[in-house]
Amino acid sequence: MKKANYGIGLWAFNPCLDRFCASGYKDALTTKKKIELLASVKMASGVELTYPDDFQEMENAELKKYLQKSGLQCIMVSANVFGDRKWMFGSIGSSDKKVRRDAIGVAKRAKDSAEALGCDRITLWLGQDGFDYPFQINYREHLSNLVSGIKEVAEYKPKMKVCVEYKIKEPRTHITIGTAAKALLIAKECGENVGVTVDWGHAMMAYENPAAEVAMLGDKLFHIHFNDSYRYWDDDMIAGSVHTIELVEFMFWLDEIGYDGWYSLDIFPYREDAIEACRLSIENIESARKLAGKIDRKKLLAALETQEAVKSQRVVRELLYPK
Amino acid sequence: MKKANYGIGLWAFNPCLDRFCASGYKDALTTKKKIELLASVKMASGVELTYPDDFQEMENAELKKYLQKSGLQCIMVSANVFGDRKWMFGSIGSSDKKVRRDAIGVAKRAKDSAEALGCDRITLWLGQDGFDYPFQINYREHLSNLVSGIKEVAEYKPKMKVCVEYKIKEPRTHITIGTAAKALLIAKECGENVGVTVDWGHAMMAYENPAAEVAMLGDKLFHIHFNDSYRYWDDDMIAGSVHTIELVEFMFWLDEIGYDGWYSLDIFPYREDAIEACRLSIENIESARKLAGKIDRKKLLAALETQEAVKSQRVVRELLYPK
Amino acid sequence: MKKANYGIGLWAFNPCLDRFCASGYKDALTTKKKIELLASVKMASGVELTYPDDFQEMENAELKKYLQKSGLQCIMVSANVFGDRKWMFGSIGSSDKKVRRDAIGVAKRAKDSAEALGCDRITLWLGQDGFDYPFQINYREHLSNLVSGIKEVAEYKPKMKVCVEYKIKEPRTHITIGTAAKALLIAKECGENVGVTVDWGHAMMAYENPAAEVAMLGDKLFHIHFNDSYRYWDDDMIAGSVHTIELVEFMFWLDEIGYDGWYSLDIFPYREDAIEACRLSIENIESARKLAGKIDRKKLLAALETQEAVKSQRVVRELLYPK
Amino acid sequence: MKKANYGIGLWAFNPCLDRFCASGYKDALTTKKKIELLASVKMASGVELTYPDDFQEMENAELKKYLQKSGLQCIMVSANVFGDRKWMFGSIGSSDKKVRRDAIGVAKRAKDSAEALGCDRITLWLGQDGFDYPFQINYREHLSNLVSGIKEVAEYKPKMKVCVEYKIKEPRTHITIGTAAKALLIAKECGENVGVTVDWGHAMMAYENPAAEVAMLGDKLFHIHFNDSYRYWDDDMIAGSVHTIELVEFMFWLDEIGYDGWYSLDIFPYREDAIEACRLSIENIESARKLAGKIDRKKLLAALETQEAVKSQRVVRELLYPK
Repeated sequence: MKKANYGIGLWAFNPCLDRFCASGYKDALTTKKKIELLASVKMASGVELTYPDDFQEMENAELKKYLQKSGLQCIMVSANVFGDRKWMFGSIGSSDKKVRRDAIGVAKRAKDSAEALGCDRITLWLGQDGFDYPFQINYREHLSNLVSGIKEVAEYKPKMKVCVEYKIKEPRTHITIGTAAKALLIAKECGENVGVTVDWGHAMMAYENPAAEVAMLGDKLFHIHFNDSYRYWDDDMIAGSVHTIELVEFMFWLDEIGYDGWYSLDIFPYREDAIEACRLSIENIESARKLAGKIDRKKLLAALETQEAVKSQRVVRELLYPK
Repeated sequence: MKKANYGIGLWAFNPCLDRFCASGYKDALTTKKKIELLASVKMASGVELTYPDDFQEMENAELKKYLQKSGLQCIMVSANVFGDRKWMFGSIGSSDKKVRRDAIGVAKRAKDSAEALGCDRITLWLGQDGFDYPFQINYREHLSNLVSGIKEVAEYKPKMKVCVEYKIKEPRTHITIGTAAKALLIAKECGENVGVTVDWGHAMMAYENPAAEVAMLGDKLFHIHFNDSYRYWDDDMIAGSVHTIELVEFMFWLDEIGYDGWYSLDIFPYREDAIEACRLSIENIESARKLAGKIDRKKLLAALETQEAVKSQRVVRELLYPK
Repeated sequence: MKKANYGIGLWAFNPCLDRFCASGYKDALTTKKKIELLASVKMASGVELTYPDDFQEMENAELKKYLQKSGLQCIMVSANVFGDRKWMFGSIGSSDKKVRRDAIGVAKRAKDSAEALGCDRITLWLGQDGFDYPFQINYREHLSNLVSGIKEVAEYKPKMKVCVEYKIKEPRTHITIGTAAKALLIAKECGENVGVTVDWGHAMMAYENPAAEVAMLGDKLFHIHFNDSYRYWDDDMIAGSVHTIELVEFMFWLDEIGYDGWYSLDIFPYREDAIEACRLSIENIESARKLAGKIDRKKLLAALETQEAVKSQRVVRELLYPK
Repeated sequence: MKKANYGIGLWAFNPCLDRFCASGYKDALTTKKKIELLASVKMASGVELTYPDDFQEMENAELKKYLQKSGLQCIMVSANVFGDRKWMFGSIGSSDKKVRRDAIGVAKRAKDSAEALGCDRITLWLGQDGFDYPFQINYREHLSNLVSGIKEVAEYKPKMKVCVEYKIKEPRTHITIGTAAKALLIAKECGENVGVTVDWGHAMMAYENPAAEVAMLGDKLFHIHFNDSYRYWDDDMIAGSVHTIELVEFMFWLDEIGYDGWYSLDIFPYREDAIEACRLSIENIESARKLAGKIDRKKLLAALETQEAVKSQRVVRELLYPK
């Protein structure tokens, strides 16, 4: 079993506000400070940044140097086309042409910024593209706008990858790219360099088993976000804090499909110390990964062949509760 | 607005058992009796049959004649590869080759039977193909078996349509073809004559808005099942008994995409008189359809263009609650 | 059928932020401005205020006068023991005694302020009292703190009512007072002047049928919040925008139990014009109320006596879709 | 840590049918055979029976002797007022007086039978008492019937305990006694000898954390049913097969409240060997129990006092993933 490389979305060090606690559960920090804190999580060597948010305090060159000095590598740049009221009715899929153009522009510049940091991929999480009410949008035009917009982003600097991250709701009551299958449908339409990001909590919220979805995605799986939840909502909790067996299974199948990307955290530690929450998350993932690594692969695959749950569950149980 | 043609799945007249009430809430009836009851629902002119279940009492020729005499047309034959313990670990997607062959055989014979009744399509609802437990199946082999099996069924008598009906769970805790997008992905892989059946309750259970999904499917929408539910489960209740506005929206979008197929019921009236439940269902659908037909299309599309929910909701509200 | 009195929670005119759009979808307004906007919703004559938030711009006397001038009456004061990071681990139920004392203090002062405005009741929505993780709190101590704290608030100025508003989650993944039954259990323990607020969306999120719960609560129903949602989450949408039949049923049962309080809105019109969202909400509620008023009560009760859904649904259907 | 006593509901050895597979996934067995199989699960020494179902093959005296010979003790008798079409509109809470009287009769005779076997308690799971549709029942009369009926059952042979088992839905879309709090409300009204059965999957389905609910119930917790699920539905899977950390927490809190009753299984091993499913369930529970027993109680309670999830999760993590 080879070593896993861990990354963290820098937003774990944000104030973590919610709609009731507008000032957030923590103080806002500078980008530098956030990077410094993240770097103190020794198991992590990758950082996910958000464009333009994290690119405003330092010039690209300075930021690159600062990351290097901190022992970190930028592994992903997320195009922020969701966190401002201008995107409230959607971004790339908006019915407003000007908004669409702006959103595509942000995504392209996110690619520029990523490239400047030596990073080969961006995230498109189109969280505002969808609807809240019945009878709110023209579904067909919206979908057609989404596809052509993502295609345009993909064709710009085509050596860079575009990772479409799906989520079934929040902040809209219905987000268009809501499941792994819908993301894959769209990725297939948009080009070779377009793939899918599976976020653990987003998968659970869509009643997916994350392991089954990555097995379906195969090499269209471009990136992973870890966290945990109670299934019904994107709670963005500490990874491994609620679900254990499914996490072990996920690690097993990531290896089966030969996933060789980053293992990255997307958590919102509202009431937790962010550093500690990241540490515990990575330790939990790493424990699950090691446990998965101990599975007698041949024995398990033989058990799966019988489809008898008792047999395969016993394989895992013996590792989880050793005598 | 053109006339809608209504059909009913004959199983609405089954005993409607559940796991606690094994003997069912009603007496079992002969196929003839069930058809006779269905025929008494005057608004319905189509019937969905299940193969082999509904083909055992009468020969094809006799059944065809009996349907004609009853004023009914067979609009769909559902291949039963789910209702016997032999399919408990899956049918077309089973890891057991013999089971897969048997399932494909049932589906082909369902096509034969449909053809004999002058019906051009079958349903593949692969409700047993999935898993219950983490670590139960080999997801990749399973998916590959599913696709090649459906393809084989599609290629047999290729003028006949194969309607893949998705459902996210029940009877398995996780069914592989669980969402409209996953069904579409598979349909696209399996051929021109493979499309998707949208069941209202199955869509809701996957947190889909049925209207949005049919708009995505376009001419890959091959069939519709109506019923109603409280979203979390496939309650298979009387259509229109819980949700009103989304039903009106669904009817609007069926017209927008030019759907010209049947409007068919898939209900389980456990504790209701089946005839009355069918009648009320069709009346509700028809009322919603008429209401959708009264929508000032131009005005609504203009409201959708603004994406402002208040505007479009007002269009509907004025029809729902006239002064 | 007597006239209904409508109120609105003033927070409908807030910026409506969420965790992704920290600056909100709208500009922040002064309390005066918010009251002015609310007053422009002619069907509403009551306003719900939050303490201390809405009591900082004007002195009590000035605020009272301003409300009067605006044709509004303060019908409820909500004690804000949730919207600041100091309450992040709970308020009245915190394991930290100082936090508990502070929270009880806020609630008492909310009573003072309500009294000053001629209002006889406060809301205790203890949204931070619960937990996020397994193994996070000492459930028994927490519950005991909750009960003794609410009792203390109730005993202060005991002629004023304390309305416990339940919600199953958000902002915590698990809120202790999560269902109508749990709120009733606690209300019964805490005194005569403690009752329950039913919020439509909170009820739905707990898979309650709001009508059934108000029937259970009887005269322990102290207040109502209207809005709408897709059941799984507290979407706080325009009332009546998604669910129609259950809303009519709710209005029917409010009359059955002789509810004579306010019909108040708790909505978050993130992307909607707040005035228009309030207007449409009240119009929808009023339409459902009128429809419920037209129900032939004797006929309906007779249908309910048979427990046959088709019969009772027909009673409603005939009003909803008149010929 | 004292020894736990394990029991199993005999229905684990039923054919496990569902609405699609009416003949069940297994063959029907005689009561004797089922008891023989159950007895082969060596860790179990208790059996839960259903009245009248399991009392028809043998007379009480013979059954008692047979159980003894098998090394088993009857720990619970469940009154079957749900598994026949006569209860389709409810049992003790039906609007039909005759049905109510019959249901109360069954429950009393269940007490007689339990007593004859030396068992001191019965289960009332009123799974048919509720509604499916909006506008289906008279909620107030129904609730009043429920309470007076349970009271009558409780007052008959008052030394015997009545365990009210709650469940939020299935087979009805809404069951009246749906949550721990509602069961407790009713138990409190019905008498000292009326308490609550917490079923793991029923708790999860109501978005409860089972540990939090047993802490609330205290000595009103009369019985426990173990199984597992994916939260949204009563999947009745092998205990511990999906959720690990919450199971450990549950065991911890059972000890905290001094629970000294049976640890009993309520599983439906549709596609699994029933004996193996029971064995694996008990092994998983026992492993979680032992893990909970290893928790440094003082350290954990101190961590809970801080309400910081990272601290308490670390206590558990170190036991779950030892170095």
